[in-house]
Amino acid sequence: MVIAIHGGAGTILRSSMTDELQAQYEQGLNDALEAGYTILKSGGSSLDAVEQAVARLEDFPLFNAGKGSVFNNAGKHEMDASIMNGKDLSAGAVSGVNGIRNPIFLARAVMDHSEHVLLSGKGAEAFAAQQNIATASEDYFYNEFRYQQWQEALKEDRVQMDHSDKKFGTVGAVAMDKTGNLAAATSTGGMTNKKFGRVGDSPLIGAGTYANNHTCAVSCTGHGELFIRAVVAYDISCLMEYKGLSLSEACAIVVHDKLKKIGGEGGLVAVDSKGHIEMPFNSEGMYRASIDADGKKTIKIYKD
Amino acid sequence: MVIAIHGGAGTILRSSMTDELQAQYEQGLNDALEAGYTILKSGGSSLDAVEQAVARLEDFPLFNAGKGSVFNNAGKHEMDASIMNGKDLSAGAVSGVNGIRNPIFLARAVMDHSEHVLLSGKGAEAFAAQQNIATASEDYFYNEFRYQQWQEALKEDRVQMDHSDKKFGTVGAVAMDKTGNLAAATSTGGMTNKKFGRVGDSPLIGAGTYANNHTCAVSCTGHGELFIRAVVAYDISCLMEYKGLSLSEACAIVVHDKLKKIGGEGGLVAVDSKGHIEMPFNSEGMYRASIDADGKKTIKIYKD
Repeated sequence: MVIAIHGGAGTILRSSMTDELQAQYEQGLNDALEAGYTILKSGGSSLDAVEQAVARLEDFPLFNAGKGSVFNNAGKHEMDASIMNGKDLSAGAVSGVNGIRNPIFLARAVMDHSEHVLLSGKGAEAFAAQQNIATASEDYFYNEFRYQQWQEALKEDRVQMDHSDKKFGTVGAVAMDKTGNLAAATSTGGMTNKKFGRVGDSPLIGAGTYANNHTCAVSCTGHGELFIRAVVAYDISCLMEYKGLSLSEACAIVVHDKLKKIGGEGGLVAVDSKGHIEMPFNSEGMYRASIDADGKKTIKIYKD
Repeated sequence: MVIAIHGGAGTILRSSMTDELQAQYEQGLNDALEAGYTILKSGGSSLDAVEQAVARLEDFPLFNAGKGSVFNNAGKHEMDASIMNGKDLSAGAVSGVNGIRNPIFLARAVMDHSEHVLLSGKGAEAFAAQQNIATASEDYFYNEFRYQQWQEALKEDRVQMDHSDKKFGTVGAVAMDKTGNLAAATSTGGMTNKKFGRVGDSPLIGAGTYANNHTCAVSCTGHGELFIRAVVAYDISCLMEYKGLSLSEACAIVVHDKLKKIGGEGGLVAVDSKGHIEMPFNSEGMYRASIDADGKKTIKIYKD
């Protein structure tokens, strides 16, 4: 019974962090971690645990997902999310949805109540209405901090990852439940000032999210385009299944060697079928937290 | 110097085919194959070859892509396409685009002229306008045959793969050029009467399309949802790279074992870095054609 979550990776420096802000981030991570772990302890599934952990991260305004989503070029919040069940490889995902309070709930509904894996844009929103998925007004997603980020990005006509320091705003969770089932979930608000309906790795099964009981569950955060081209999440699984590597070895190769070679900054959280946890990243920092098989809790932001 | 293309897989039966119709399909395949091969012969890149071959398949009204795209639930044509360069793993893709004459040209423009891999919907169309990608009116995509398919599907409120017989309408191409570079491209008009902005495997790098000079180039056609969950194209590559399998062995495992177990009907075309060609499918038939390293041309529809 283990769980690991992330709130994004990137150039997160101690020098630009206050004690108060750091405490807030840690509180946000802790709340999400406990929400997922409570489900696991009560005998719930890893699928429910990652869904609820990600929903809490979406509700936390400092992470770029759900409520805390950045503004796109049109001044809207265009969100992506995905979830996968390692037990049967079922999966659900949404891309470019607007006004959905918790995109991860919609991804779960796509998995449970449609014949599809990935729904996008207005179509996905129509499905959400049919499924009674909670919506939220523009006000709910409004955040003065995010608005200022967008205004600055607009002025310079640049597309920005997240924050003034380069951060890949994504949240995610992976877990193994009492019965040994693995699951993974990821959600993001995308890139500040993003245009052209850009879709990153977060809603893509195999790239940003993957789970398979025989190998591992993975949720990524990083420069989405590079993570797509490297099919990161499934690559970890394949290195374990086909090459016989441990989760730790597979993570090291993908994050510190393969991704680095192509300039793919970021990281991921992963658990394997034996309950091992890995939270590797090749950036300055990654908001991350876990509770391992012995019940030991870890909450970290920087490299050390 | 090799090329292989497909025009979709599924329940294609001799009993429901006329000689005249079969000749038309074979002509369509031959034209696209020759368009790509002509580029390879003149020293062009595999990337240009697969792009042009797919563009010809998009222009051919009997295949479900580009001009021949099926009607979605709203009576529109919502198309997806992707392309990948095995030389540097660069890739471009679009999903849910309307009114674009050749979606594969737009996917190529995303690869060449944006920082992104996947653009969707209206945003992708705005990018197309900026890049002067040719558009086409509703009339161009209108086809009485497709319209009747849609009307029938509407009546029964069902989402249909393609044709009255169950066919997965997708086109694709893979090639190796004189310098040994591999490339893959895929394009589709989706599912008749499809709702909710459904996205299949065709625009997803790793699922429907993948190319890597060290292993292989793959373009898939089949039940998209299952192909996404199985990360089919990248799985072939991983089985070769990590398990040391031949292209033929990898294709057999993925198409005839792994996909079949989860009900994933369909097939793919693939070439490896030595110029071997594979065109496996687990359905009744697959429109396919190839020219191998000895210049031998093959055009086939059924199993035998």
